[in-house]
Amino acid sequence: MNIEEKTIEEIAQEILSLYRDKKYIEIKKEFEEINPTDVALIFGEFSEEQRILLFRLLPKEAAADTFVELDSETQEAMIRAFSDTELREVIDELYLDDTVDIIEEMPATIVKRILKNTDSQTRASINTLLKYPEDSAGSIMTPEFVDLKENSTVEDAFKRIRRTGVDKETIYTCYVTDSSRHLIGVTTVKELLLHDYDDIIQDFMETNVIYVNTHDDKEEAARLFGKYDFLALPVVDMEQRLVGIITVDDAIDVLEEENTEDIHKMNAIVRTTEKPYLKIGVFETWKSRIPWLMFLMISATFTGMIINAFEDKLSAMIILTSFIPMLMGTGGNSGGQSSSTIIRALSLNEVDFKDIFKIVWKEIRVGFVCGLSLAAVSFVKVLLVDKLLLGQEDITFLVDLVISLTLVVETVFAKAVGCVLPIIAKKMKFDPAVMASPLITTITDAISLLIYFGLATAILHI
Amino acid sequence: MNIEEKTIEEIAQEILSLYRDKKYIEIKKEFEEINPTDVALIFGEFSEEQRILLFRLLPKEAAADTFVELDSETQEAMIRAFSDTELREVIDELYLDDTVDIIEEMPATIVKRILKNTDSQTRASINTLLKYPEDSAGSIMTPEFVDLKENSTVEDAFKRIRRTGVDKETIYTCYVTDSSRHLIGVTTVKELLLHDYDDIIQDFMETNVIYVNTHDDKEEAARLFGKYDFLALPVVDMEQRLVGIITVDDAIDVLEEENTEDIHKMNAIVRTTEKPYLKIGVFETWKSRIPWLMFLMISATFTGMIINAFEDKLSAMIILTSFIPMLMGTGGNSGGQSSSTIIRALSLNEVDFKDIFKIVWKEIRVGFVCGLSLAAVSFVKVLLVDKLLLGQEDITFLVDLVISLTLVVETVFAKAVGCVLPIIAKKMKFDPAVMASPLITTITDAISLLIYFGLATAILHI
Repeated sequence: MNIEEKTIEEIAQEILSLYRDKKYIEIKKEFEEINPTDVALIFGEFSEEQRILLFRLLPKEAAADTFVELDSETQEAMIRAFSDTELREVIDELYLDDTVDIIEEMPATIVKRILKNTDSQTRASINTLLKYPEDSAGSIMTPEFVDLKENSTVEDAFKRIRRTGVDKETIYTCYVTDSSRHLIGVTTVKELLLHDYDDIIQDFMETNVIYVNTHDDKEEAARLFGKYDFLALPVVDMEQRLVGIITVDDAIDVLEEENTEDIHKMNAIVRTTEKPYLKIGVFETWKSRIPWLMFLMISATFTGMIINAFEDKLSAMIILTSFIPMLMGTGGNSGGQSSSTIIRALSLNEVDFKDIFKIVWKEIRVGFVCGLSLAAVSFVKVLLVDKLLLGQEDITFLVDLVISLTLVVETVFAKAVGCVLPIIAKKMKFDPAVMASPLITTITDAISLLIYFGLATAILHI
Repeated sequence: MNIEEKTIEEIAQEILSLYRDKKYIEIKKEFEEINPTDVALIFGEFSEEQRILLFRLLPKEAAADTFVELDSETQEAMIRAFSDTELREVIDELYLDDTVDIIEEMPATIVKRILKNTDSQTRASINTLLKYPEDSAGSIMTPEFVDLKENSTVEDAFKRIRRTGVDKETIYTCYVTDSSRHLIGVTTVKELLLHDYDDIIQDFMETNVIYVNTHDDKEEAARLFGKYDFLALPVVDMEQRLVGIITVDDAIDVLEEENTEDIHKMNAIVRTTEKPYLKIGVFETWKSRIPWLMFLMISATFTGMIINAFEDKLSAMIILTSFIPMLMGTGGNSGGQSSSTIIRALSLNEVDFKDIFKIVWKEIRVGFVCGLSLAAVSFVKVLLVDKLLLGQEDITFLVDLVISLTLVVETVFAKAVGCVLPIIAKKMKFDPAVMASPLITTITDAISLLIYFGLATAILHI
């Protein structure tokens, strides 16, 4: 099926009409042809009651795969409707890290019911995973991986994979551990397939294994996937024992999640939920947006104070007022460009604190040539458009000069401030994404005004 | 090796001192312990000449893997220094899609030399791949995949994988094609391992295959990996024949690349290169930043005109001027919040054009509650801080009211404009990321001023 051939809505319509005609066997057949991710999307078009019935039409494995993809509210409603047997069947099919993700979103009563319906070993694993801090590598790993012994043959390895592989999220990367579960090597099913059956694993395993610790940051762990093209990354505990792996699909989710969070932070939004846009209510959206709006509004008191201090001069030469928005806007945009570039470079680990002087020096030069270009164009534009075309007689050569000079100086300042603050924020263990356009703009607004009024006072003698 | 144990610089220092002592055998040993990605980073600390010598110390396969990770300037320099034999050895070890990526960055003479040193079949594949448009799925696929026949047994399949797998970028997803190369099914090495040797592939293969066309957008293709947790995605041509696959590592690169591009676009930067920050020169940075700065500066002529039109009223009541930055800033921030949220939701396919009314209605309500909250706080703040504390006698109850009302109305407008423009841009096949904070701010600046002066005229009778 090409993803574009039929939309989810169309398939949902088909299933709805089959549902109304009670043609459940045909629904069952239809579901067999649809990827569980899409089944979950289709469920979105049905009522809670209908979903339960549809869910019971899914084959066991597809049922679990679909369940994972539902949003947590739907999951909760379904668990409430499940019998204990049904619940156990779903949980049995789930990978442990998915079970933990689900549990984290559920109220205590549901969590109790889930744990009651798992065997004691699984329960212990779940409890261990739940203890890792939210942003840690441990919180996204799964303890289900293929482990091999170094003196096994390729044949032994395949036997072991065939025997235990069905429950593992990935079998393609196999980890070699010693008797105390220390990670001593890694190999892949590809390597195994390309070796003879009686080759010994330690003779060809890779001993230089890149791994992370359970307490490492999950974003840092996820970035390693892009860098090294991994399918899975081993996670060790404080005693260097292999306790789990992170799989590439979870790494992608973390990267996308972090990117969304960065984009939101860079636009003065406090992320309070991972729900998709249309699922977030008005009040919750307000809660995520009002803190920064409020803070930035109050911070603008300073720009107001600057204007007030120059009030007499402004009323003496009111034409200066009309260029304030353009000058503040340009300062903000210049600063926003450099801060966003540096924030992104920091999250991709392209730059770090030791590069600070190199970066500032570059941004100052970029600011200077940008400022010069802007000033040249503005000088002519103000003369031709504002003075001649729009007939603003008050604009003199010197006024035009003040505006152009302000552009040069403010662009240099804005670029420098824009690149320095994110680096300092990161050094101080804050998230650099906060130092993006909105906050930078508030700062450059004040800087731009000071430069503007300063130059005006000096050159126009007002 | 834990990634944090030794930094790249430290290892580079070690190798440099071994290099000075001409202890090449030890360097060779050291390199065997280091991931090719890190070897490439280490190369960054050496001169061109030194790199060639070091490169010759690498084992063949690691040499190719390292070569892929170098930046294109270094690659070019190395190819110039290679003998034809060396070049052929490297190219032979590369996956085809990587060869094509390298070729795309090279000057014509180097391209000729590369093509001269490949066999005719590879050359034909390279030429086909080079023809796909830059942003298409075809441009990031590799034609090297495992294809199986539907009537093969599991044993046949493993034989085929063992025979041909060494040259494939991934062997874990296997595609089943008919005699005219149409894609009819898919299976995985995991499935194969869990079945008996004499099972027939068509009995258990998945026939509902999700695929993309060569001309589909590469970002859309990459998003499917996050959605469906794929390790590889098949790519078919116009006649539905399987011509290649996209692997998850390339999908991650595309996603990160698109995220970087979005963040840059959202901050008024034209992306002209994929080079990391520190590799981009001042002039190139200027080129990527000046177009929007210039456009937005000139657009601000309108805000200037609005202020000019109200010049007389402003000089009658100069106190109004000091709140312009705060009001424009708040409008810009409010609009930036909603536009960035919608831009992100659009790229994650969480919303589309048909949701426009739902979105606008939500943003208007969010704008109203945000505006009310801001107005309430501002009203008190202006009275207590600006009037009483800072002693601005000109602030009357009515002036304070105008400011508060402006906050409410402008926030609603800004939120609505901020969410509508990206959706319309996408509908008109523009990139919605352009409709982010900088452009929205320029628009909301004008709107905010009109609302402010309109309310001031009506309420203060100036």
